Amino acid sequence: MTTLLPNFLGGRWHSGSGTGTPLFDPVLGDELVRVDATGLDLAAGFDFARSSGGAALRALTYRERGALLAAVGEVLQRHRDAYYSIATANSGTVKNDSAVDIDGGIYTLGVYAKLGATLGDRRHLIDGDAARLAKDPLFQSQHVLVPTRGLALFINAFNFPSWGLWEKAAPALLSGVPVVVKPATATAWLTQQMVRDVVDAGVLPPGALSVVCGSSAGLLDTLQPFDVLSFTGSAETAAVIRSHPAVAQRSVRVNIEADSLNSAWLLPGEAPGSAAFELLAKEVAREMTVKSGQKCTAIRRVLVPQDLYGPMAEAIAARLGKTTVGNPRNESVRMGALVSRAQLAAVRDGLAHLQAQAETLHDGATHPLVDADPAVACCVGPTLLGARDPDAADRVHDCEVFGPVATLLPYRDSAHALQLIRRGQGSLVASVAGSDPAALAAAALELADSHGRVHVLSPDVAALHTGHGNVMPQSLHGGPGRAGGGEELGGARALNFYHRRSAVQASTAVLAGL
Amino acid sequence: MTTLLPNFLGGRWHSGSGTGTPLFDPVLGDELVRVDATGLDLAAGFDFARSSGGAALRALTYRERGALLAAVGEVLQRHRDAYYSIATANSGTVKNDSAVDIDGGIYTLGVYAKLGATLGDRRHLIDGDAARLAKDPLFQSQHVLVPTRGLALFINAFNFPSWGLWEKAAPALLSGVPVVVKPATATAWLTQQMVRDVVDAGVLPPGALSVVCGSSAGLLDTLQPFDVLSFTGSAETAAVIRSHPAVAQRSVRVNIEADSLNSAWLLPGEAPGSAAFELLAKEVAREMTVKSGQKCTAIRRVLVPQDLYGPMAEAIAARLGKTTVGNPRNESVRMGALVSRAQLAAVRDGLAHLQAQAETLHDGATHPLVDADPAVACCVGPTLLGARDPDAADRVHDCEVFGPVATLLPYRDSAHALQLIRRGQGSLVASVAGSDPAALAAAALELADSHGRVHVLSPDVAALHTGHGNVMPQSLHGGPGRAGGGEELGGARALNFYHRRSAVQASTAVLAGL
Repeated sequence: MTTLLPNFLGGRWHSGSGTGTPLFDPVLGDELVRVDATGLDLAAGFDFARSSGGAALRALTYRERGALLAAVGEVLQRHRDAYYSIATANSGTVKNDSAVDIDGGIYTLGVYAKLGATLGDRRHLIDGDAARLAKDPLFQSQHVLVPTRGLALFINAFNFPSWGLWEKAAPALLSGVPVVVKPATATAWLTQQMVRDVVDAGVLPPGALSVVCGSSAGLLDTLQPFDVLSFTGSAETAAVIRSHPAVAQRSVRVNIEADSLNSAWLLPGEAPGSAAFELLAKEVAREMTVKSGQKCTAIRRVLVPQDLYGPMAEAIAARLGKTTVGNPRNESVRMGALVSRAQLAAVRDGLAHLQAQAETLHDGATHPLVDADPAVACCVGPTLLGARDPDAADRVHDCEVFGPVATLLPYRDSAHALQLIRRGQGSLVASVAGSDPAALAAAALELADSHGRVHVLSPDVAALHTGHGNVMPQSLHGGPGRAGGGEELGGARALNFYHRRSAVQASTAVLAGL
Repeated sequence: MTTLLPNFLGGRWHSGSGTGTPLFDPVLGDELVRVDATGLDLAAGFDFARSSGGAALRALTYRERGALLAAVGEVLQRHRDAYYSIATANSGTVKNDSAVDIDGGIYTLGVYAKLGATLGDRRHLIDGDAARLAKDPLFQSQHVLVPTRGLALFINAFNFPSWGLWEKAAPALLSGVPVVVKPATATAWLTQQMVRDVVDAGVLPPGALSVVCGSSAGLLDTLQPFDVLSFTGSAETAAVIRSHPAVAQRSVRVNIEADSLNSAWLLPGEAPGSAAFELLAKEVAREMTVKSGQKCTAIRRVLVPQDLYGPMAEAIAARLGKTTVGNPRNESVRMGALVSRAQLAAVRDGLAHLQAQAETLHDGATHPLVDADPAVACCVGPTLLGARDPDAADRVHDCEVFGPVATLLPYRDSAHALQLIRRGQGSLVASVAGSDPAALAAAALELADSHGRVHVLSPDVAALHTGHGNVMPQSLHGGPGRAGGGEELGGARALNFYHRRSAVQASTAVLAGL
């Protein structure tokens, strides 16, 4: 039997009392470890997090909490090689793709560590200026932000076991709010190992960081009104969470990041082979293949002027054709595996679902697998689809295939392109490529109401831009509508979720003491 | 048969096809008018609001939209006398209490009209500074706020048919978002009349403002992902709303303001009869009686040091004893009616529920009704309860009696007082009274995480402060936990709910065009 990973809750390690759920190597098929949360006293563990962890964190200043984040980052840096090994084994990712998760998490911790130093020796935040409530300036209103007196529960997705934890934990801990993370079972190992290393290093106060691996049963039942819940995953699970009494009745604040049919849009007037054209083609091919397309921010729909449908199909297909797929341990491999046989089946089903309304412009099935057994490995080549009648092809606007799949859509004019993009009903990110700054700015503003982020590709930033799918901690991460309506990151904005805003109406003598 | 009030939807007036639900005079018992929404084409009406109203509003600048709000305020000002007559008849309120609703609404419109002028000739807002995404400053992230491309549905409470509409509509319209209001049936007349006057005056673009009176059936079903929903009412209905597919599945953004057990806290060290002591006694008596205690912000729990339990009971009771109750048409009457026989029964039931764990320090039943028939009028005198063992009296921390009822609670020390206040599980507002600015500031910060607003009563602002229960548009209105977790008003903060935030990552040449 493989190792049963223990949970850390209530300041102690507990192994679940069940036999556990196995985690697998998605390339070799081996069982790696098991996780189980059966028999945990969640209520006592959550109380410990709130009382011990919360009180200890709130007693610190933002600067001190920022120093804790820096210390966590140092611990992770020390164990970085082990994390890459776990990622290779459990996520089946090549080194560059593991880096997005592992180094992305460490980088995000560093950004919030620095923010803590900027916020300084305070334990609450001043929100805006005081406002007069009468003609006499003696009585005014001053808004403040104070940490919520509860815990933050993260229910995370399988594709980012490292970054998904730290991009949420960094702002939570910096805000003075203790964290309980429930990683997705398929890749829980890396999350559990990182928490274990941080706990062993003793850099955080007891109760500040806990991990529960396995079933999420009972977690939401244990939430109280001042707790907050951040969920990343499917729209179906999101709906269940929103309807749970913790949220519906006890007003637990919830942040959801769910499905997204992100777009990339080449503005009119760019010739085939132009700088903007090539920037878009490169970005689409990269987004389709990084982490085998298992990124919630990946490009799913590619919009080009009608007369560029053919040239763009060729340009993207040419790039995809060079992508070697297979065992990430082989240095020639550029794209590893999907996370599980279940995901492989879901991607194949989704692809067939889309292919009923689309032609195949580049077929992933033509990619031979390198060092991997197709009967075992969860590997699949990248597939570019095309829908010549994008108005009629409703599935491409509605069904997210969570793998290396995107669909090319020809549009008549910008109004048509925007109409098609909006059929996604709210997405995390759209890219827009072009060479005219004014047209790009106008397009960005048109996209802003239905996207949490707009990534603008212009030739002057070809070598500088941070990538459509990379989530930078300085920028908002989240999107309206189908994408869940959440807001994460965005620099200091991320702290809002973990704070409570209050208006203090008082005499200026009292306000001076805030 | 009384008049059946028509609904305004899709740019036209429609009378419901049913017989209608009657509205009554809560003092005289007369039927006044009827409302009905049967047979309305909600889908077509909502589409008209989104397409015509939304497009017209978004085409305007903040300054132009602010001018619309000013024009709405002028229309309301012209018809003000008629609104007072409706309030007297349908809400049973004395003139001062009607003013809180009517003039409070007009004042709030004025504040947001001025904010529009401040925001100026723009159609979107810049959110914060640009942030570098790399060492090279050419590629940066700039957050923007753009109006959501949907409508704002308000499902409102019976106690503020005017203010409840305008405190929400002012920020929505200023943001460029069309409004559909569904007032509570019991007092829908005033809301309907105000919308009618604004529509007749032609000051808003077609589709910008609609009203549906009667049942809320089908309203939520008609919402789409970019619509927003603001609800004020009971926690039970709030839970139903949060679980509705529009919210749970389609990510309609929702703001909830529900129950609240607001507190007033006299800090230790204030002598009986001191300025702070008297400030608190006066504020409690006022909050209990304004609008017959039918304010979501009214004081429900009064915390005083143990040795002041008797003196404070006497001080509040002495003030309550002077409150004449009855027909608001009689000039000697200070407190009018509850809104309906149903509310009267609910208040009596709630009072009995609390009295099982509390003594009666001032009995509202001893107040004779002036010019009102107790068998018909929904009038009730103010009742002060007291719980000498506030730890054991769980009901007082859990049950909001929505009428002229409050409970006095003795505390041992500040930690005990805070513990008791927090048993409210999140409230809209707490008042704290005292004379030491530093102690008041510290108390305000302790209360901030569980209250959307903290109102500080110190002797220097005795004549200036705006009142515990008055919601000033400059300050946040809402509260965590039991209070629903919503945020309204707070000056420009109110616009966030009606905007979508997006991070535009681009070259500085593109960002210059935003």
